[in-house]
Amino acid sequence: MKGNVLVGQSGGPTAVINSSLAGVFKTAMDRGFTKVYGMRYGIQGFLEKQYVDLADYIKNELDLELLKRTPSAFLGTCRFKLPAIHEDRAIYEKIFSLLDEMDIEVFIYIGGNDSMDTIKKLSDYAIITGATQRFIGCPKTIDNDLALTDHTPGYGSAAKYIATSTKEIIRDCLGFSYQKKNVTIIEVMGRNAGWLTGSTALAKTEDCDGPDLIFLPELAFNIDKFVKKTEALLKKKDVVVAVVSEGIKDKDGKYICQYTAGSNTEDAFGHIQMTGTAAYLAQVVNEKLGCKTRSVEFSTLQRSASHLASRVDINEAFMVGGAAIKAADEGISGVMVVIDRLSDDPYQSTTGVYDVHRIANDEKLVPRDWINKEGDYVTDEFISYLKPLIQGDYAPMMVDGLPRHLTMDTKGYKDLYKLFMNQG
Amino acid sequence: MKGNVLVGQSGGPTAVINSSLAGVFKTAMDRGFTKVYGMRYGIQGFLEKQYVDLADYIKNELDLELLKRTPSAFLGTCRFKLPAIHEDRAIYEKIFSLLDEMDIEVFIYIGGNDSMDTIKKLSDYAIITGATQRFIGCPKTIDNDLALTDHTPGYGSAAKYIATSTKEIIRDCLGFSYQKKNVTIIEVMGRNAGWLTGSTALAKTEDCDGPDLIFLPELAFNIDKFVKKTEALLKKKDVVVAVVSEGIKDKDGKYICQYTAGSNTEDAFGHIQMTGTAAYLAQVVNEKLGCKTRSVEFSTLQRSASHLASRVDINEAFMVGGAAIKAADEGISGVMVVIDRLSDDPYQSTTGVYDVHRIANDEKLVPRDWINKEGDYVTDEFISYLKPLIQGDYAPMMVDGLPRHLTMDTKGYKDLYKLFMNQG
Repeated sequence: MKGNVLVGQSGGPTAVINSSLAGVFKTAMDRGFTKVYGMRYGIQGFLEKQYVDLADYIKNELDLELLKRTPSAFLGTCRFKLPAIHEDRAIYEKIFSLLDEMDIEVFIYIGGNDSMDTIKKLSDYAIITGATQRFIGCPKTIDNDLALTDHTPGYGSAAKYIATSTKEIIRDCLGFSYQKKNVTIIEVMGRNAGWLTGSTALAKTEDCDGPDLIFLPELAFNIDKFVKKTEALLKKKDVVVAVVSEGIKDKDGKYICQYTAGSNTEDAFGHIQMTGTAAYLAQVVNEKLGCKTRSVEFSTLQRSASHLASRVDINEAFMVGGAAIKAADEGISGVMVVIDRLSDDPYQSTTGVYDVHRIANDEKLVPRDWINKEGDYVTDEFISYLKPLIQGDYAPMMVDGLPRHLTMDTKGYKDLYKLFMNQG
Repeated sequence: MKGNVLVGQSGGPTAVINSSLAGVFKTAMDRGFTKVYGMRYGIQGFLEKQYVDLADYIKNELDLELLKRTPSAFLGTCRFKLPAIHEDRAIYEKIFSLLDEMDIEVFIYIGGNDSMDTIKKLSDYAIITGATQRFIGCPKTIDNDLALTDHTPGYGSAAKYIATSTKEIIRDCLGFSYQKKNVTIIEVMGRNAGWLTGSTALAKTEDCDGPDLIFLPELAFNIDKFVKKTEALLKKKDVVVAVVSEGIKDKDGKYICQYTAGSNTEDAFGHIQMTGTAAYLAQVVNEKLGCKTRSVEFSTLQRSASHLASRVDINEAFMVGGAAIKAADEGISGVMVVIDRLSDDPYQSTTGVYDVHRIANDEKLVPRDWINKEGDYVTDEFISYLKPLIQGDYAPMMVDGLPRHLTMDTKGYKDLYKLFMNQG
């Protein structure tokens, strides 16, 4: 008889983080584990004994499918970094005593760099103390900045949403272009890595020119050069669309969003709010070139628009969750599951595992040779890498015109069951 | 042998304005009109003889279906108000001489209040001069502020996008709520009418509490009262989500967005940019209550997110275009097509026509009794009215992971045809 599994979610949510959770649950049940507990709000909530039995919420295949289509962290998430073992042994003793108490054999943490750090420290502590639990990390981040994995679950769906919205916005700009030159500046998430910003290049298709300029945070941004390029483009065309990462900086390392008069405040989660880059640049262009400008920020929807998730991404996120259970079941610990790409066309991928010591806290940036020489667009290599990850849809289950989600506080699924019964 | 049809699009685009264009084209062809010309950039472009033969672009059923799924104005749009007839007869003479030259029998204009004003003036001029052309208006606006029609094509799809995004954002907020009270303020389009802002109430479903507060521009907004209500809510729950219209004003008629330090600039199309209401209120809440806050603006995507269009809306937009041709073919002129609701459940609608003199420049606001007594939410009547309009999906034709659009400058549909061939 196998023991129990404990799974948690950590860091910023994505559109598919719950698909990994679904993969963990389903595979653990299939492999004969007794229970799958979910930490509420990651390790932070767990330390206060906040956890649930996932079987209370995932009761059938329909619930499982709903979970795969639910954005944000079903279990709740946190930003919490464990102290080093030698700094605070007590916290580790507390965690491991809880694990023993709950008969936990496998500990899965779905998250980004900080979460992999948690897996590393807990598995180190287990080695030191001879504890038998296995600790596995599942990668997750829209930013795609985790090393060693070909890409991270969450990235494909965010890119699909961003590229689709960019296409729709460019179409909107073109409808208004008569005798009115206009410049639109789109701001995309990504403090240090330009993976998401670069994804707007996907909008360049048979029926759309795509953005004219794309600026990634990997390279220093020069405002004067940007204005000159925009001016040159406006001589050739009426509509100019530029995309900037929220994290672009000048050559001295100052964020462009810090050029604004108002100081940048902390966001709801304690990070400096990066918003305002596009708005500031729109103002500069308006003042210097005199043309009409507007700015668009994609905001939180980049990480929560599950209504436009990528099928490849949802399936891979699920697969990664399953692979974590499989690895643990085979006795492996202290690893992160990674996605290995087998081929581009047809796209094929599989999972592997890497020692977390090799992974944690490395930030994977867009390689310099995937950005063009001028530093204002991504190359074909970037596109070839990204394109397979946005393929296919995973249609939301629509009830009364809106996507239905699985949540802990749902009062029931009257409407949904009614819908299925009417169809049956 | 029937003559030709001329059709134009005007004002701000919607996700379904092209479905009306498709309805005009299809019905005109079916009824034996010779050609359907499209004005480029509305009457403004037409005055400079910019028009196209739509048959050059809509060559088959696939093109027609693509057009129905393409956001923004396929023909390009303008903001242009015709002078009164007695002020500038010359411009009318020019238009009518072009109509004669092109053998135009029917003139269709798809737009909002300004467009209906154009229809009124042109049909008046025809009456004065004995010209035989018929002039018909097709309503279109995401704002739903046109009188006499039950609702306007474009509203349902914008509402569906806004409600879906609101649900996803609320889910995102909840994922992060552990020991961190947070307030999110969402800003929705709508200068004077709160139809779109009120649509966020649809997010209140079995699996979502919906927003906590909704403020429409129909009522004066009181910042102090808002802060007090938010404070009271935070005592009961960790996550508070408030929705405001971009056009909310204080009791003296000053826009809340004008409270910000920076002055509000004109947008790309000459309107005062209303953005900043939510950002300003987030700052006030943060200062007064000390809790974490963030603001979200839905921006241009509200009118261009055809990837999440409502099937009811796309079908009605198409039907309205067809009804315009039918009316003109039957000899009617100087009317706007309206949508009449026959029943709520099951939802049924039909088209009618109204004399444009009764319509133009009336702005339909949300009735006071569809807003609750406190002025901070919409009532069940509002929901019952809106719910049928967001029903059903009209899946985009996805090519390589992104929605494909029909555009004038498309270089071909290699990829799309390949896709269909592979499936066939």
